[in-house]
Amino acid sequence: MSTSDANDQTGSYVHAGKPFDRDMTYIPDRITVDARDGWPVEAGRYRLAVSRACPWANRTIISRRLLGLEDAISLAIAGPTHDKRSWTFDLDEGGVDPVLGYERLQQAYFARYPDYPRGITVPAMVDVPTRAVVTNDFQQITLDLATQWTALQREGAPDLYPEERRGEIDELNRWMLHRVNNGVYKVGFAGTQSDYEREYRELWAALDELEDRLSRSRYLMGPAITEADVRLFPTLVRFDLVYYSHFKANRQPLFTMPNLWNYTKDLFQTPGFGDTIDVEHIKEHYYAVQTDINPTRVVPLGPDPAPLIDPHDRDRFPTDTWGPGGTAPQPPLAAEVVDPAHTPLVVRGR
Amino acid sequence: MSTSDANDQTGSYVHAGKPFDRDMTYIPDRITVDARDGWPVEAGRYRLAVSRACPWANRTIISRRLLGLEDAISLAIAGPTHDKRSWTFDLDEGGVDPVLGYERLQQAYFARYPDYPRGITVPAMVDVPTRAVVTNDFQQITLDLATQWTALQREGAPDLYPEERRGEIDELNRWMLHRVNNGVYKVGFAGTQSDYEREYRELWAALDELEDRLSRSRYLMGPAITEADVRLFPTLVRFDLVYYSHFKANRQPLFTMPNLWNYTKDLFQTPGFGDTIDVEHIKEHYYAVQTDINPTRVVPLGPDPAPLIDPHDRDRFPTDTWGPGGTAPQPPLAAEVVDPAHTPLVVRGR
Repeated sequence: MSTSDANDQTGSYVHAGKPFDRDMTYIPDRITVDARDGWPVEAGRYRLAVSRACPWANRTIISRRLLGLEDAISLAIAGPTHDKRSWTFDLDEGGVDPVLGYERLQQAYFARYPDYPRGITVPAMVDVPTRAVVTNDFQQITLDLATQWTALQREGAPDLYPEERRGEIDELNRWMLHRVNNGVYKVGFAGTQSDYEREYRELWAALDELEDRLSRSRYLMGPAITEADVRLFPTLVRFDLVYYSHFKANRQPLFTMPNLWNYTKDLFQTPGFGDTIDVEHIKEHYYAVQTDINPTRVVPLGPDPAPLIDPHDRDRFPTDTWGPGGTAPQPPLAAEVVDPAHTPLVVRGR
Repeated sequence: MSTSDANDQTGSYVHAGKPFDRDMTYIPDRITVDARDGWPVEAGRYRLAVSRACPWANRTIISRRLLGLEDAISLAIAGPTHDKRSWTFDLDEGGVDPVLGYERLQQAYFARYPDYPRGITVPAMVDVPTRAVVTNDFQQITLDLATQWTALQREGAPDLYPEERRGEIDELNRWMLHRVNNGVYKVGFAGTQSDYEREYRELWAALDELEDRLSRSRYLMGPAITEADVRLFPTLVRFDLVYYSHFKANRQPLFTMPNLWNYTKDLFQTPGFGDTIDVEHIKEHYYAVQTDINPTRVVPLGPDPAPLIDPHDRDRFPTDTWGPGGTAPQPPLAAEVVDPAHTPLVVRGR
């Protein structure tokens, strides 16, 4: 689910007089141990197409890092902007993804369905032998990385979706999706003042609930990181950078919410989270692509992202970040390190 | 100088590929003791047309308050939004200014010059007998209120433009106009990314200089309020409300700049300053009128203006707010009290 084409192919996100309604129909195939849809778990077979700009793709990049699946699943990184038709591989030499040989992610969708009618979205799992998209069902992809790919996960990989907590995690994730992760889009793409005001109030009520929840434990589900944190972090890290101003989600900056902000800093500073973030890609995407709310396409120079690496206070809670037997992930692959000019982790050298 | 029509009559502020260039030609007549332009200082003769939204008009409302000229010069308050042609008196009963009998400020300009070709701007001093605009030269209006209207000023009125400091005040005001007061517009209406980035850097360098200057004295020129403060405050009070997001002047919120923010709070809480501010009018104006940077016309609900009445730390400096023999102004006229739902001074009841 891209932040953009998911809704329609015309590049417009705001519809006068209407609330924002995200198209939630995806290619539902799954890659599983039993290959029930014809797609077995297999090292080297799939390529994960993402953009670092997109919060939904960001989840899959984080999960792949936390679980140590970098060698099993390769990464195709599209640029932060795209035209009305597709994300493009403009960051790659010659503007072509070196493995798939495509200029445009759309080509992988058309390889699967020549008349694919929906948005060309990231994240997308692409079958390398056929160069065709397997699935773009962003909610299922991270669950399957956590539960189907266990044999290929690194030693010490965390259990992000522990069996006995799945009901609670699913419930929280469902609520967060509608109220927070997609909630910010409903605020930003509201077609009327009254839709905007309703969604703004819903969003802030939800953030107040999360602020309270995070006063009680280090992570959303307790002392260890889970799938719920993987889903919330990409929204929070984009909040002051983009959603506050561009989406008018501006009751207050997130950095004035002590628990949410310290939680965001904590995760940003945790291997596998902050090292997936490209602040410049994030800002460029929203401001340059969503021209119906930013027609000038000017990308703001601020705000300074450096406070993301300020000290946090989350050590005060009982902590078992990686769960029983778990360990932190290794540093990112050299080829996947975010441009040091784009990330405060490296810029500030702390 | 309105925040809008001053530039052109088409309602568009951003010109692709071009920097923002404010039309600075105004009707240059002055109202003086010697009536050199045919306009004598005279109680009850002139009506000051303003919008509470506009920072340039805001200066004149503040000066009129500080100097106690409310009985000598009446106030016509236009609504926060306007169409491509004119500010309108839509807040008045029947949509008509009760003294001038006009629906549109444009009528007062046309009464003076039937083919007036420039923007219909506030503030404007209107001659009540002829119902024609005398001057819209916003920079001269406040200087003349301070220096020509002395005989009609209240007892204890401050000397906002002391003779021996005029050179310094003029120099500071000229620099602030280009770098800060109009600087935020040059950032917000930049037609290219590079214009934006240049103006953003100029603006923030200027704000850093003011932050430093305000570490040394309570007000810009020392222990007493002057014309320079009357000019800076309207920009600062709008900064986090509008300029940070809408104009992308977002290196950091003003509330994170200790001297600038405490100075803003201090003046907001000083009679004659905060009581002229209508937060709702300000937000509605910028977001609803400037459709080329906010095409949806959605007006943000945030940010919360209540921190404007939080305690400040400016008492630490030597203080002689109203100067030798000066006193604070009386409360506003009952008819001119800002809607209590629009101002944190009253809402929070501190």
